[in-house]
Amino acid sequence: MNEIKVTPWEVKGNINYEKLIKEFGTEEVNDTLLKRIEKYTGELHFMLRRKVFFSHRDMHWLLDEYEKGNKFVIYTGRGPSGDMHIGHIVPLIFTKWLQEKFNAELYFQITDDEKFLFSKKENQTIEDVNKLAHDNLLDIIALGFKPKKTKIFIDTEYAKTLYKEAIKVAKHLTFSTAKATFGFTNESNVGQIFFTSMQSVPAFLPTIQKGKMTPVLIPCAVDQDPHFRITRDIASKLGYPKPAAIHSIFIPGLQHGGKMSTSEPNSTIFLKDTPKQVKDKINKQAFSGGRDTIEEHRRLGGNPDIDVSFQLLRIIFEPDDQKLQKIYDDYKSGKMLSGELKQICIEKINAFLEKHQEKREKAKDSIHDFLISD
Amino acid sequence: MNEIKVTPWEVKGNINYEKLIKEFGTEEVNDTLLKRIEKYTGELHFMLRRKVFFSHRDMHWLLDEYEKGNKFVIYTGRGPSGDMHIGHIVPLIFTKWLQEKFNAELYFQITDDEKFLFSKKENQTIEDVNKLAHDNLLDIIALGFKPKKTKIFIDTEYAKTLYKEAIKVAKHLTFSTAKATFGFTNESNVGQIFFTSMQSVPAFLPTIQKGKMTPVLIPCAVDQDPHFRITRDIASKLGYPKPAAIHSIFIPGLQHGGKMSTSEPNSTIFLKDTPKQVKDKINKQAFSGGRDTIEEHRRLGGNPDIDVSFQLLRIIFEPDDQKLQKIYDDYKSGKMLSGELKQICIEKINAFLEKHQEKREKAKDSIHDFLISD
Repeated sequence: MNEIKVTPWEVKGNINYEKLIKEFGTEEVNDTLLKRIEKYTGELHFMLRRKVFFSHRDMHWLLDEYEKGNKFVIYTGRGPSGDMHIGHIVPLIFTKWLQEKFNAELYFQITDDEKFLFSKKENQTIEDVNKLAHDNLLDIIALGFKPKKTKIFIDTEYAKTLYKEAIKVAKHLTFSTAKATFGFTNESNVGQIFFTSMQSVPAFLPTIQKGKMTPVLIPCAVDQDPHFRITRDIASKLGYPKPAAIHSIFIPGLQHGGKMSTSEPNSTIFLKDTPKQVKDKINKQAFSGGRDTIEEHRRLGGNPDIDVSFQLLRIIFEPDDQKLQKIYDDYKSGKMLSGELKQICIEKINAFLEKHQEKREKAKDSIHDFLISD
Repeated sequence: MNEIKVTPWEVKGNINYEKLIKEFGTEEVNDTLLKRIEKYTGELHFMLRRKVFFSHRDMHWLLDEYEKGNKFVIYTGRGPSGDMHIGHIVPLIFTKWLQEKFNAELYFQITDDEKFLFSKKENQTIEDVNKLAHDNLLDIIALGFKPKKTKIFIDTEYAKTLYKEAIKVAKHLTFSTAKATFGFTNESNVGQIFFTSMQSVPAFLPTIQKGKMTPVLIPCAVDQDPHFRITRDIASKLGYPKPAAIHSIFIPGLQHGGKMSTSEPNSTIFLKDTPKQVKDKINKQAFSGGRDTIEEHRRLGGNPDIDVSFQLLRIIFEPDDQKLQKIYDDYKSGKMLSGELKQICIEKINAFLEKHQEKREKAKDSIHDFLISD
């Protein structure tokens, strides 16, 4: 058995998501919860139907409050470590759906401070990371959040607001707890140790800024959960409600399981990739569940469950369950070849990216509808 | 031998200042340095003549730069833990003199974040500490700094500027080093561990804001030196000049040696004290170097070196060397009684406080000439 490690800064090993639920002490997204969500939304996002969002904290409390008329605010974020890839937008696509269905306000934090403090690139300055933040901002806006209901902020530009609240969190967090939660050592820098306090703040800002108890829902990839365990522990000490959370799995890297990562460009589809880059990466790099020969494939069938192209369709690019099922069946039976599956995946990704890149260009004109600062 | 401990948050034991110079690795303020300062200022402040400022770092480098025409900025500060007392203003009175003599700009940091993070008062909020900061601000302005050459800022109100620079410092500071410097433990909160990064920033701000290498001089009580050891270590890594520093001794508490402290009101003269409070405290609490009976005092003489009233005159309230010497001689010979020495001290303090309290009232009208924020 390989060692599994899941922190906001390191995901190692082949993740067993069921085990992670037990380890993190979260709850499974089960049919009872899905039915309850469907009651308010009228339909379920395919990421819910397919358990791409597989784990949660306190969703029932959140929906109880919603039923009482106490609307929630959504809080999510992005750590600008480089160009954004398709793995980063899984929680964001779902966040957009939540915002629409619940007509919810969204607080969006871009943590340039974090990525600077944790960067191992020796010459990377905070100014460099801040530039990445502004670049990522365009991808975020391009996803289509509601301008009047969305506040996006970059930590170093909103620090007057954030720092004052962060020190309230920090006062309740010992080095000991931070160390146990994130695996810090004596050689960790003091900014890294402090940082989680900054990530807690947007969970409390709606209550602070509205002057009334406001529930918050955090959709995020499950590796962010350690931050929000701390946020939840400290919330009650500060007199704020504990934020609810709903957690997604990771998009696998093209060449392997685990988590798609900016640091492995050959294993990653970036939002800026050209159609040719996507084609080449999927064809050459995407791990295939196919057989060694066409003859064997036709006879024995492929394995969609380990095929990365199929997983990309399942997790993000093919919302239609019937179409997805047909691909699954055809691939499994051997009717569909690996090249054909890859071709479908390439077309879907490129159709998405073409539109995204157009919207990204247009986003340049609406930055001021979204970005706030001190 | 009692244990000596000197950190920004704890001063314990009877301080041996000569030993502290060795322990901290600073340099003695000697006659060579004094002569050199006198060359530029025309006269020496009595706190220099009397070695109230007894220790320094890199003053010769600072004056070398000054000779080359590279003017320095002064940086000092205040931790707003409560009402200000006479011990707090020793470095500030000297700072005012430095500002005048060198026509220097002054950056003045008020660390409400620090005092909140280190406060042991369970119900004290950052908003409470921020109020103290605004109250202390009046005492600071009352000391007479030049409005056009002085920038005062309160950390939580200037955090957008400070935090972005603080994380650059933090990235070079490990928990290990912070622990060794300040005595943190695993139970220290993560805000305390991070805080020194915020206190480093004003040492670099002049260079950042002017866009050219600007020397900085930090006049402060010697217990602040641990912060600036870290600042100096990290300065070169960030490409900034190391700040010079000049360190004062502490004003002793009335009842004992050590350091006058807000937490012992009977041992402390506050800037808001009434003439009657001052009279009562000095008469009843100030440790006396006198003899048990008047007869014995006349015959054997008193000991001004351990008499707290005399020390207050020496350190802050009697600038005239001849007058001070006469008091010293008369007390030592037995000609002056303890009650008479105390009477002089009371009159001097009350004359100072009367003027100070008037200027404090007037300061309310000039806050905006001094206070900056994001």
